[in-house]
Amino acid sequence: MFKVKIITIGKCKEAWLASALSEYIKRLQGKMSIEWVLAKDDHQLSQLAQQEPFIALHPEGTLLTSEILSKKVISWGMRLNFVIGGAEGIEKDLLDKAQFCWSLSPLTFTHQITRLILVEQLYRATEIERGSRYHK
Amino acid sequence: MFKVKIITIGKCKEAWLASALSEYIKRLQGKMSIEWVLAKDDHQLSQLAQQEPFIALHPEGTLLTSEILSKKVISWGMRLNFVIGGAEGIEKDLLDKAQFCWSLSPLTFTHQITRLILVEQLYRATEIERGSRYHK
Repeated sequence: MFKVKIITIGKCKEAWLASALSEYIKRLQGKMSIEWVLAKDDHQLSQLAQQEPFIALHPEGTLLTSEILSKKVISWGMRLNFVIGGAEGIEKDLLDKAQFCWSLSPLTFTHQITRLILVEQLYRATEIERGSRYHK
Repeated sequence: MFKVKIITIGKCKEAWLASALSEYIKRLQGKMSIEWVLAKDDHQLSQLAQQEPFIALHPEGTLLTSEILSKKVISWGMRLNFVIGGAEGIEKDLLDKAQFCWSLSPLTFTHQITRLILVEQLYRATEIERGSRYHK
């Protein structure tokens, strides 16, 4: 089973986001666990992120299709750590240590929407891998 | 005031989506109205879309940053129609008639997440235009 850690800043205040995320987390049961690691500021984010290899979500990263992401998820192995920066993005020192730097889109998203997209893409990656109809 | 029509297939079944959308629609009050036009199938979508100029959301469209989208929203004028295709995307005949074809990301999103991204980007476009701190 995949063990995913999502390291980010802040809380999950919005009820709609908690509800949307729980839907995907439920669907991922038995295939992928999602652990949220919530830092209180950039400094703590940096400390938490550097404990293991991680993938940074950053506007200047590489754009991926869902199919390529699915292949990458497999190649990255069973333990995956994703870092989503705060309002100012991810500090350069930390960014330089990322194993991969991924951009979801040239558009700027809120942190809430970024979390939702990430979890849905991870679910989609597992469905692409098993060849289901979810991703047509 | 901007009048936006979002023409798409299906209903808004998910409670979390309705809740997230209503948050942005509330914030847009007085600046932009959002009207949902829900078709029952591709044929009806095509009929509804062709009544006025429209922007198609399609994976093969042009990627935009939020800043460029903001400029485009202004240039497109006060009446904006967006078409989001069904599970099979937008039929080629209809796509050829679009005034602009926009891709949110190389990633594939669900229709629910596409609707949320579109409405948040429209809100963000108005905030970029007025130079607020929402889009830093």
